[in-house]
Amino acid sequence: MDHLMRDVRAFAEARDWQQFHTPKNLAMALAGEVGELLAEFQWLTPQQAAEVMSDPEAGARVKAEIGDVMIYLTRLADVLDIDLVEAALTKLDEVATRYPAAEARGSAAKR
Amino acid sequence: MDHLMRDVRAFAEARDWQQFHTPKNLAMALAGEVGELLAEFQWLTPQQAAEVMSDPEAGARVKAEIGDVMIYLTRLADVLDIDLVEAALTKLDEVATRYPAAEARGSAAKR
Amino acid sequence: MDHLMRDVRAFAEARDWQQFHTPKNLAMALAGEVGELLAEFQWLTPQQAAEVMSDPEAGARVKAEIGDVMIYLTRLADVLDIDLVEAALTKLDEVATRYPAAEARGSAAKR
Amino acid sequence: MDHLMRDVRAFAEARDWQQFHTPKNLAMALAGEVGELLAEFQWLTPQQAAEVMSDPEAGARVKAEIGDVMIYLTRLADVLDIDLVEAALTKLDEVATRYPAAEARGSAAKR
Repeated sequence: MDHLMRDVRAFAEARDWQQFHTPKNLAMALAGEVGELLAEFQWLTPQQAAEVMSDPEAGARVKAEIGDVMIYLTRLADVLDIDLVEAALTKLDEVATRYPAAEARGSAAKR
Repeated sequence: MDHLMRDVRAFAEARDWQQFHTPKNLAMALAGEVGELLAEFQWLTPQQAAEVMSDPEAGARVKAEIGDVMIYLTRLADVLDIDLVEAALTKLDEVATRYPAAEARGSAAKR
Repeated sequence: MDHLMRDVRAFAEARDWQQFHTPKNLAMALAGEVGELLAEFQWLTPQQAAEVMSDPEAGARVKAEIGDVMIYLTRLADVLDIDLVEAALTKLDEVATRYPAAEARGSAAKR
Repeated sequence: MDHLMRDVRAFAEARDWQQFHTPKNLAMALAGEVGELLAEFQWLTPQQAAEVMSDPEAGARVKAEIGDVMIYLTRLADVLDIDLVEAALTKLDEVATRYPAAEARGSAAKR
């Protein structure tokens, strides 16, 4: 994870792209990549979507799009000086408190 | 990172939420969280966005939204059996080839 | 449609919000609202999603989110001086040429 | 507007695409197109974004992406039997009440 963050940063610096990598721009780029990921799934049935990785071509595209999303998320967190894994673990703790397992079991109702 | 993946998986299983965590649903949830992240930045000037983490309230919200995005991205990758960091590193290699540093320096032009 | 565009513009001007309504900011806000719309559908089964409008509460939320998306799309088009309906009709013509009915029948394959 | 809705519906029916045009799938497709729209703006400075329509190539791409977004939004509203313009006007009324002009003037603070 640290390795990835440093590689993405070095990639950007080698191209003098820090000027483009503002929080607003990176958030937009992240959303754009998530849009491409959605496009891979949008016309699939739930069954087809569940089996997408067993199709070599579609599976490769999904993996590449997930990679793109992760690259921009890593870069955005780096620029904001946020530890991605720690932010997720902290948030997971909060959500676990809001949705106790006994009460939330089997229900997608929002709290 | 593995720790996070296992925690998110255990969180879902403890609530019997695997039934909701299909690839299509998780991709939608990921996009929904990215939308909330965008909302934190949308009316900020570039300058305000660059300084967002020095505002305790806005900074906490941004960190929480980034945590949410990371949680769903981790869960989606887990369900698809994709290694998130490896997918990003592989994609970064491809992008590095497509945008050689010498040619791409200081330019955001798409290839 | 023209009526809506003028109402949204008047709404923004009455609040001196033109300063926030730049193309980048409006595109982000549009994506944020689409994210909220996705959130309404993300955990529903295809069957539940198809019947969402017959649930008074969920139906009202979906309608409100669609309204939000339309407001920002209308505002973005206005700021860019794009005729929304004309842009859609022009694009539909292009897509119709790319996907001839006889060949595209029943297939979601991308071209 | 009604004309567009009927044209989009006829386009889908001529290709037997109603099977793909479920609310979940259309919401995903809408988000995908918004992602492509964001991608047009993501690396532009605010100044460049404000002038994007005076660049023939970028302007044509932005208009085409806006057209795509409008096509899917129109189709989604049609499938859900929602009047797009009425939904936006209704929501605009609600927002006008929540953000009275006198109090909201010049402020992007959320309520």
